[in-house]
Amino acid sequence: MRTAAALIIGNELLSGKIADENLVVLAGTLRSLGVKLVRAVMVLDELGVIAAEVRALAAAHDYVFTSGGVGPTHDDLTIEGVARAFGVPVVRAPNMERMLREYYGDRITEGHLLMARVPEGARLVAGESAAWPAVVMRNVWMLPGVPQIFRAKQPLIQAELSGGTPFVSLAVFTTLDEGQLKPMLDRVVAAHRDVDIGSYPRWSGADYRTKLTFDGLVEAKVRAARDAFAESLPPDAIVRVE
Amino acid sequence: MRTAAALIIGNELLSGKIADENLVVLAGTLRSLGVKLVRAVMVLDELGVIAAEVRALAAAHDYVFTSGGVGPTHDDLTIEGVARAFGVPVVRAPNMERMLREYYGDRITEGHLLMARVPEGARLVAGESAAWPAVVMRNVWMLPGVPQIFRAKQPLIQAELSGGTPFVSLAVFTTLDEGQLKPMLDRVVAAHRDVDIGSYPRWSGADYRTKLTFDGLVEAKVRAARDAFAESLPPDAIVRVE
Repeated sequence: MRTAAALIIGNELLSGKIADENLVVLAGTLRSLGVKLVRAVMVLDELGVIAAEVRALAAAHDYVFTSGGVGPTHDDLTIEGVARAFGVPVVRAPNMERMLREYYGDRITEGHLLMARVPEGARLVAGESAAWPAVVMRNVWMLPGVPQIFRAKQPLIQAELSGGTPFVSLAVFTTLDEGQLKPMLDRVVAAHRDVDIGSYPRWSGADYRTKLTFDGLVEAKVRAARDAFAESLPPDAIVRVE
Repeated sequence: MRTAAALIIGNELLSGKIADENLVVLAGTLRSLGVKLVRAVMVLDELGVIAAEVRALAAAHDYVFTSGGVGPTHDDLTIEGVARAFGVPVVRAPNMERMLREYYGDRITEGHLLMARVPEGARLVAGESAAWPAVVMRNVWMLPGVPQIFRAKQPLIQAELSGGTPFVSLAVFTTLDEGQLKPMLDRVVAAHRDVDIGSYPRWSGADYRTKLTFDGLVEAKVRAARDAFAESLPPDAIVRVE
């Protein structure tokens, strides 16, 4: 199974000024592609930290996706961080420079042109969903942090990483609490090792008390685990099965 | 300055089924206490991974806050992970067992009693905001993932970690884009090293194009940096100053 990691970059997130919106979007994209997101790390705008994280994450996963830090100001350190992680210089991509000059015309500044910087050896991934290409260095995708733009890049990832088997997810909603359903759940977990089974209590405001989820790559196995669990419950404890 | 890290635990987050809501809440709490949140890591429900992360984060930061994985089911591995990180066994806390027996009465199960598990040597932090105490092992706070309960624990953190100087945050909103304002910004960044300066472009739908933030522990320094930047802009490029 292909694996991925996310690196979310930005002081504004760790200071609580804004909430990250991008991880759940990326996670949904990867899930639909059958790529397992196994780790996400959020760091401050610090060059050495970013470089070290990129190096570690890129070595341990098939893909890494960064979010944020790709603008032209002093706090935008992702391009330089990725370049440092791979021991290459930062260069200006001619394609991107041309696009910037076309867009800004006479108003262009040296600041604007900084947005054409890429790690040497990076490739540009373009597509209809995004006017601006995504920059990819080896297995590291450098995505912008602005949520609208981050979302617009997702089809580029989908096109490049397609071909996997998407995950299948089923669920049982029950009126039992986790303490009550644990014995039945433990038996199903032990008997269906290929299925990732999750248990999520709902605190208030729902018609169920606990949602059980069943995830895997082989639908028949996922369905068997879900059905085995549902059949182990008293019928009146089941709110619905999905 | 005191530092903190967050460890967000749960397959449901990395699979994109739900978005984490807790990090931004914790970040806001720490910010108000003058504690710098420098790193957040999100991992799957895997015991070895959780234990290794807790060990690394606890050694490198003044405080660690975990979110999730504290229920009684097979996918709740945080208590055991923290115990393993510190090389201690998991034991049942008499106080918590008594509270559980009072709450559930005759309906109590072995599953319910699993919620009284703590790493040996942990202490319980109680307060009016939360009926159930928070479990703290050395510098690691184990908080539940359910957002309502996670929020209810924040006053316990505020009471325990109070006494620091809260961060001061000011801002300038401008119609200039980052490429245009970069030269002015670079000068202010270079001259005000004690102030953390951020630049956030707004993609659409706002009266400004870029928000500049100025953060630090000493209000006079933060104010000086913000004013120096505002004064370097053409007056008609300033939307507002906060």
